[in-house]
Parts: sequence; structure tokens; C-alpha cells
Amino acid sequence: MSYRAPLDEYRLLLNHVVGFDAVAGTDKFADATPETVDAILTEAAKMCEEVLAPLNRNGDLDPAVLENGKVRSSKGFAEGYKAVADGGWVAVSADPEYGGMGLPMTVTSIVNDMMVASCMALHLNPLMTQGQIEALEHHASDAIKDLYLPKLVTGEWAGTMNLTEPQAGSDVGALSSKAEPNGDGTYSVTGQKIFISWGDNDFTENVCHLVLARLPDGVPGTKGISLFLVPRNIPDETGAPGTANSLKVVSLEHKLGLHGSPTCVMAFEGAKGWLIGKENDGMRAMFTMMNNARLGVGVQGVGTAEGATQKAMEYALERKQGHTQEGTIIGHADVRRMLATMKADTFAARSIALSLAVAIDMSNATGDAEWKARAAFLTPIAKAFGTDTGIDVANIGLQVHGGMGFVEETGAAQYVRDVRVTSIYEGTNGIQAMDLVGRKLMDGGEAAYRLLDEIEAFAEGARTTFPELAELVWQSSENLRETTEALVARDMPDRFAVAVPFLRGFARVLGGYFHLCAAMAKPDRAEARIARFYITRLLPEHVGLLAHAREGAADLMAISPDDLAV
Amino acid sequence: MSYRAPLDEYRLLLNHVVGFDAVAGTDKFADATPETVDAILTEAAKMCEEVLAPLNRNGDLDPAVLENGKVRSSKGFAEGYKAVADGGWVAVSADPEYGGMGLPMTVTSIVNDMMVASCMALHLNPLMTQGQIEALEHHASDAIKDLYLPKLVTGEWAGTMNLTEPQAGSDVGALSSKAEPNGDGTYSVTGQKIFISWGDNDFTENVCHLVLARLPDGVPGTKGISLFLVPRNIPDETGAPGTANSLKVVSLEHKLGLHGSPTCVMAFEGAKGWLIGKENDGMRAMFTMMNNARLGVGVQGVGTAEGATQKAMEYALERKQGHTQEGTIIGHADVRRMLATMKADTFAARSIALSLAVAIDMSNATGDAEWKARAAFLTPIAKAFGTDTGIDVANIGLQVHGGMGFVEETGAAQYVRDVRVTSIYEGTNGIQAMDLVGRKLMDGGEAAYRLLDEIEAFAEGARTTFPELAELVWQSSENLRETTEALVARDMPDRFAVAVPFLRGFARVLGGYFHLCAAMAKPDRAEARIARFYITRLLPEHVGLLAHAREGAADLMAISPDDLAV
Repeated sequence: MSYRAPLDEYRLLLNHVVGFDAVAGTDKFADATPETVDAILTEAAKMCEEVLAPLNRNGDLDPAVLENGKVRSSKGFAEGYKAVADGGWVAVSADPEYGGMGLPMTVTSIVNDMMVASCMALHLNPLMTQGQIEALEHHASDAIKDLYLPKLVTGEWAGTMNLTEPQAGSDVGALSSKAEPNGDGTYSVTGQKIFISWGDNDFTENVCHLVLARLPDGVPGTKGISLFLVPRNIPDETGAPGTANSLKVVSLEHKLGLHGSPTCVMAFEGAKGWLIGKENDGMRAMFTMMNNARLGVGVQGVGTAEGATQKAMEYALERKQGHTQEGTIIGHADVRRMLATMKADTFAARSIALSLAVAIDMSNATGDAEWKARAAFLTPIAKAFGTDTGIDVANIGLQVHGGMGFVEETGAAQYVRDVRVTSIYEGTNGIQAMDLVGRKLMDGGEAAYRLLDEIEAFAEGARTTFPELAELVWQSSENLRETTEALVARDMPDRFAVAVPFLRGFARVLGGYFHLCAAMAKPDRAEARIARFYITRLLPEHVGLLAHAREGAADLMAISPDDLAV
Repeated sequence: MSYRAPLDEYRLLLNHVVGFDAVAGTDKFADATPETVDAILTEAAKMCEEVLAPLNRNGDLDPAVLENGKVRSSKGFAEGYKAVADGGWVAVSADPEYGGMGLPMTVTSIVNDMMVASCMALHLNPLMTQGQIEALEHHASDAIKDLYLPKLVTGEWAGTMNLTEPQAGSDVGALSSKAEPNGDGTYSVTGQKIFISWGDNDFTENVCHLVLARLPDGVPGTKGISLFLVPRNIPDETGAPGTANSLKVVSLEHKLGLHGSPTCVMAFEGAKGWLIGKENDGMRAMFTMMNNARLGVGVQGVGTAEGATQKAMEYALERKQGHTQEGTIIGHADVRRMLATMKADTFAARSIALSLAVAIDMSNATGDAEWKARAAFLTPIAKAFGTDTGIDVANIGLQVHGGMGFVEETGAAQYVRDVRVTSIYEGTNGIQAMDLVGRKLMDGGEAAYRLLDEIEAFAEGARTTFPELAELVWQSSENLRETTEALVARDMPDRFAVAVPFLRGFARVLGGYFHLCAAMAKPDRAEARIARFYITRLLPEHVGLLAHAREGAADLMAISPDDLAV
């Protein structure tokens, strides 16, 4: 099984779909010229194809295990990680002051996309570190930054996020971990955390945990939570990882997928930690990390969709069954339909993720409020639609394989299992949708309407070249506008009840827009044919979704728990 | 984890939705009075709840293995199977002449539904036997029937289906297994078969294989295929399983799910077999078995959806997270939406499956051509929509569990893994859809239009009670009628390209109809509230599906394999 990075698609997206030229045009990202970006992506692609992709099955067949309290990682993962770290791929966007490349999040996202597609379980490790770097850059003291960031950026040390506790999942405010001041500026952190991805590993010198805990005077709920940096090994005077801290991995979860990524139960037993940000202000710092992570997780969906699509294509081009012009099952219309769906939806999800990355970059580079609002608005959509697409596309990929898809040796099922968690972690997709219809519509729909204006203006301009496609995209945008207006006029319970179909409807329309951009850029090429497939056959799903989204809460909540019981 | 058979829902379906009174009104099924059927279902429910459900996790954790060429089944499966056989649940519909209960397929389907929900992996064994019994009843000689049927009906012996070979999956006609006449009326069967569910077990005295193979003068393709009965042990003069036949289990597949069901590679090495039906007419006999099996597999989807829904409900009523009126996550609107979707779609898929069973029963009881056509028409829809619903509902169930859903100990992931094969085996869902738009529309749409007439007449009658719901169902039926007319007017390539969205659109509309029936029967009860949810929020999906279904083949096939490559 071989993975090939879709470099041409990235080039098309950057140049013609998500408007990366605006990013490259800022002072902050002036170094991100087309040539530089291309060279970087080509280099990362080579590493992913040659080093990471061959490790993907290892992670599944030889899962990470806990031996004498230490994680032993899957065969080859240490070498794979070294290639990631040595290439500088842990933290492409990190501040050059601390050794980063200072490149846009858009470039990070594409590099992540390739790393996920080639080996999602291993890549989850640097993805966690990326979030930690961003949180420290924004909220840590200079002393902490000087000590930790250079180690994290090079990948010598790894970072983790410790939020969840058994009684505190989606409701982070329910957590009970404690932090007591030691009197010397440090804190003693005590508590149990669960679902900690890569809570330990055997290939970095140190593992640095960002832990949410409550100070003695912290009020109940999210307003009494603070963030602490708790390293596995406490750095000594030279900055080298010194004595072991009072924390341990208690156990690893036995999961549906992602076997190569150890999901740890962590126990902090008076572990020494340093406050990050202000007291009782931990949620804000955590959100810096989580927003970044939400884009990253959306990209996990996209990358998996790419891997699954390539695998299904490989099989479809090889498997002979029935009589077709092509000689293989790719000649059957229904197989073609499945593959086209995979390709078209992967493109849609990827465009949304990268247009979020562009909005983040523009917001960071210019401080412009509109870009900031756009980034905020697109975050839940990129996370939820990216991961739902990863799940759906992986499932279609399995289907393309027929009976062989159900056999584990084939490898198609691994994509289905690995990606399944992405609609759950970093805020379930239900939470993303509630964020969209709640916080992200608090501006009265301004950020949404600005996007729709842009879509409709573009569709108007495309009418000459693609009259039918332009009209369909324009209509879908108008339908979405009316639905958005209806939601904005309603109270929160009414919005929450239809949040998920609304989010998906929004994503469908955005996908239509980005496909139309691609078609306009390449009107006689594959891109236009795939765009036509998406816009005429997949985009119409928005009609049903938006009908659902206009229904409100009353009829739903009238269904009592008893009504749902046997 | 406890399973409760949804007996009230079965009663509602029989009495008010799928028209079982017509079946009970025939001479053939005069014994199937409401009281008898209720007593039988209650008894089967007890066995499923008490005996089978506790075995479900065993099948996953302690998979069937091959030891010295013999299958060793999962812990407890032998005892579970004994309860199934002793209760007479292997073959509820088998001919009383051979020891069966002679009850309608509708009753068999409900009993299967309960057995699947409680332990799908074990139930797959009697499901295979059911198909074999039906094939033998229709096509075997009296001598074969007298010898085999009594043993199969009691469950003393088990049956299997041997179609697939490595190069012959969906294209059965490509098979290369051979049968040579021995000169004594028996045949020597040689070849390798793959994906043979329950190809062996350690709890029946004999295992009887129905094997497709080619006689020396058999032409290539499906027209040269004959069907043979090849027992593992050759019955002696007394009818007891005698000496071992020349066949063996070569290996078991390592699968995504259904670990309790051994999926065998079988080698037949000059094994002694008996011709079933006429020479070169094996496909017809096989289709008897496969049509039965297609309903059975659709019901596997329904049963799994039921099991997954009950599991998710249990979790949602227990898990505290955030502040809700109910105190648990069932108070969150999005969780309610997920559970309502599971409940409503399970009901829709179950209604379709049972209305197919009723059509089969009416066709068998009356010989009426319209009932026969309806059974033929509904078969691919019940199979594909039933299994797609099983897959979707199991996935939503996992999502309801949040992070715990990804942890195997929870059990939610097992439903996702187990049910995944159902959209592939017994004819992939793509093949079902092609059957629907091909063979099943060869009547010019007559069977389809008769269904739509029935839906619209019912919707008209429901307008006074449920004006909005009746109108939505009526509209959806009209949309479907227009789409069907468009398809009937087109050639096969145009139909095949859109077969899958057309089938799903058809199922969505049928689901709306059956929900409306339920609402009319219980206008102030849970059924009406769930029907409203389905009709206003899920049924609208048909709009997008039917738009896709009107697109034809040209734009799709214009996307070349190169267009889909990286």
C-alpha cells in the first residue's frame, strides 16, 4: 500500500480556492512565497510517503502497550517520530524566536494532512505538541517559554492536553483535580485524568502535560479552573529533564482504533506544576490550544479521507469483477459513484479546513476583526464536517473493497476504526454545532452573511462559464441565508435542537462554493468534472438538512425519554 | 447490558402498519392467529433476553478459532445454540411435514430480529440454515428432503451457502469449482470457496454445504452453474452422520467484527455431493436461498439497530454531564435528536422489512402475481436500507457514548463492527440498488406505482388527523413517482449510475408512509411524536437523494479513473 501526497490539489487550493495569496501578501508571512511553500510541501510529502506511510499498519497490529508503568510504542514509531522531528515537521508554524519556521497555519495544516493520511496514530503525538506550543506562546511567562518552547519545537520533548476526568467530559467545568500553591511559585497538582492521547512515549526526552485543575479558592464550574504545566521530568538547572515528577500512567484504553496511539489514564499525585496564564483563567488558555486542535482534528478527518480514497482507488483499479470497459471494477458506475463521492467530499472538507487556516493566518497577521470572526465561525464547521467526512469516506472506502473490506489484513477497515474517534474528541461534533449556532451566531449572523455574500458574488461571476452549477450554488446559499435568519431569530433551545443538521447544511454549501472555485480555475479539467458531480449530486443534500434545521426544538423535546424506551 | 425485545412495537407493526391480518386471513396461515403469534413472540423474546443477549460480548472477546482443522466456537455459543434449536427457533417457517412450525415469514423475521439484536454472531448460524431449508424445500428431490430437512429444521444439523471464490464475488458466474459425475447419481465436487459463514461449528452433528460448481459440460458464466448439497459427514443408511467427506476448513478470516461467527475458507477436494435442482440451473435454486437471505440480512441491520439503540438509551439515562432537567444527558437536545433518529430509522427499516415479509407470505399463500411482484420489488430495498440503517444507527449509538464509545469495553463499538459487513454480503447494497432499477423496474414501474398509489391513498385519508404530515408524505410520494418515471424512461447505464440514491430515496418515502400509519393508529402516543420527527426532519433527505437520482450516467462516467487519481 502506497500513499502519494496530493501536491497538485494543494497547489490548486492555495492558488485558486482558499486565497492563500492574501496570507503570503502580509508582512508577517512574507517569507511564505509560492516557491518556499512548494519546496516545504514537497519535502514533507517525501517524508510522509517514504517514512510514515509504511508504519501505519504497525500501529494497528503492534499497539502501544504499558510495561512497568512506561509506554512502549509500536514498532518503527520511534524512527518515524525522529524523521518528523528532524524535518522540523512538529511545529511548522512555531515562532522563529524559539526555533520554529514561523510559517502560516495553512502550511502546518497541509503538512498535518499528509502526516495523518500516512500515519494518523503517530501524527497525533506532534499534533498535541503543536497545541501546547501555541498555548505556551500565548499564555506562558518568558521563563517558561525560554525553557520549554525550544525543546517542544524541535520535538525533543512532547506535549499533551489533560482536560477530561471520568465525571468531566464535555462538561469540563465539573473537573475535580486540585492544585495547591507550594509557596515557591510552583504548585502541587493532584487528580486523575482520562483519555490522554500520548500521555507517555518512549521516544522523547520529556513529556510535558498541560493540566486543568482547581486552586483551593477556585469557584465551582469553568470559572475556577487554572492551567498548569506539569512535566514528566522536572527540568534541572541546565534545562535537561531531571528527576521524575509525581505522576504516572495508570493504564491504557483498549480502543476501537488508533491502537498505535496510547490513550492514557494519568494520575497526578502532588506533581510539581507551573501556572500558565492567570489564576482561574485556565479555560481561556485552554481554548487557545483547543481552537488550534479543532482545526487539527478536522484535518485528521481530511487526511484519513485521503488515505482511504487512495486505498480504494488502488483496489478498484486492480480488482477484476464483471465485464467493464476498463477491465476492473472502476468501470462499474456504482463504484465510480463511490470513488467520486470520496474524492469530491474530501476536497470539500479540505477546502473548508484550509479556508479556516487562511482565516487564522490573516487574523494573526493583520489583527483584522473580520478575519478573526471568520476563523471563529469556520472552526466548528471545519472540525465537524472534516471528521464526519473522514468517517463517511472511510466507510465508503471499505464498501468499495467488498468482502475484502471486512477482512482486517486489507487495511481498509483500519481507516474506519482509526478515524471514528475524531467526531468525539476535542469537543464532540454535537458540541461544535452548538458552538456554531450559539456563540458563533451571537453577532446576529454577521460572519455567516459575509460568507454567503462572498459565495453569491462568486456564483454570479461564474454564471457565464457554468450557468447550471452557478445557479445551484447560488440557490443553496440563499436557502442557507434564509435558514440562518430563521435561527438567528430564535432562542438557544430552538437553535441547539437543530444545530447538527444546520452545521452540515452550512458545510455542504461551502463545499459547493469551493468546488465552483476549482471548476472556474480549471474549467476543462478533472476539477470541473468533480465539481459538477458534487454540485449536482451531493450539494442537494442541503435541502433536507436545512428543512430539518428550520424545525426548532418543540416537537423534538416533546418526545420524552419514555417515548424512546422499549 | 440488558436487551428487551420490543414486543409492543411488533404488535403495532403487525396490527396497524404492515397489514399482517391479510396473512392471518389466508388458509395457509390460518393458524397464525394474533394469540398464537403473540405467544410465540413472547416465548422467543424470553429466550433472546435471557439466553442469547448475555453471549454477545463473548463472541467478540473469545472469537471462534480453528484448532486442528475444527472450529471451536465462542464460550457459551454451544449452549446458546441449543436453546435456539430446542425452542424451534431455527426454522419457524419450515414445512410442518418436515417438523417445522409452518408459520409466516413475518413471524420468522421478527424472531430473527430479536435473535440478531441479542447475539448477531450466533444467530448467523441458524439464518444460514433457514436459507438452506427453503432452497431444499423448493428444489431438492423427495429423498434428499426426507433425509436432510428433519435434521436441519430441528437444528441438529446446520446449513451453509458456498458461492464466493477469490475471483468470483459479485460476479458469481466467474466461479471455477468443478463437479464430476461419479456415475452413481452423486458428484465429486472440487474447488475453493471463501467467506463461508459458519463453514463449521462444534455444536451440530453435521454441517451441510450448498455449493455452486460447474459440471464438465457447464458453459462459462452463470448459465453453466449447478447447485450441490455436500455434507461434512456423509449420512449412513440410518441417516446418521457417517464418514467424513473430502472437505475441510482451511482457515478463518480475521475480520473487523462478527468475531463469534467463523468466516471460513473451504476446500472441497473431490467431496461427495448431490445435485439440487436441475443441471446448469443452480443459480435459480441459489436465488431462492438468496432472496430469503436478503430479507434475513436486512433484518440483521434492523436487529443491530435495535440493540444499539437500547444500549445508547441505557447510557443516556445514566450519564450525568452538564445541567439538564432530567439530570442526565438525555436532557440535551442533541442527544435527544440522536436517540430519536435511531428510534425513528429503526422503525422505518423494520416496517420495510416486515412489509416485505408480509408480501412474501401473501405471495406464498395466494400465488397472487401482484404480491409476488411486491415481494420482488421490496427485497433489495429491505436489504439495503435495513443494513445501511443498522450501520448508521450503530454509529450514532457510539456517538451518544462520547469518549466511552471508542473504548471497546463499553460494547457500543461492537455493534458498529459487527453490522458493517451486512451492506456487503448477500449482494452488496450497490448490487441491490442495481437489481431495483434494473430487474425490478422491468415491469415499466408497475410494482413501484402500485406502492405509491397505496401511499398516496393512505396520506389522503390521514389529512384530517395530521394535515402537515399527510401532505409531506404525499409530496414525497409524488416526487418519487416523477423520479421513477424518469428512470423507467432511461436506459440501464443511466439507471445504474443513480441506483443507490434512488433506492435510498424510495426507502425514505416508504418510511414516511409507515410512520404515518403508526401515527394514525396511535395519534396521541409516542408513535405519533416519533412519526412527526421522522416525517418533518428525516424524510426531507429524499429531496436531495431524488435530485441525485435524476442525474443519469453521463456526468459521472465523464469522470475518468485518471480524474480520481492523485
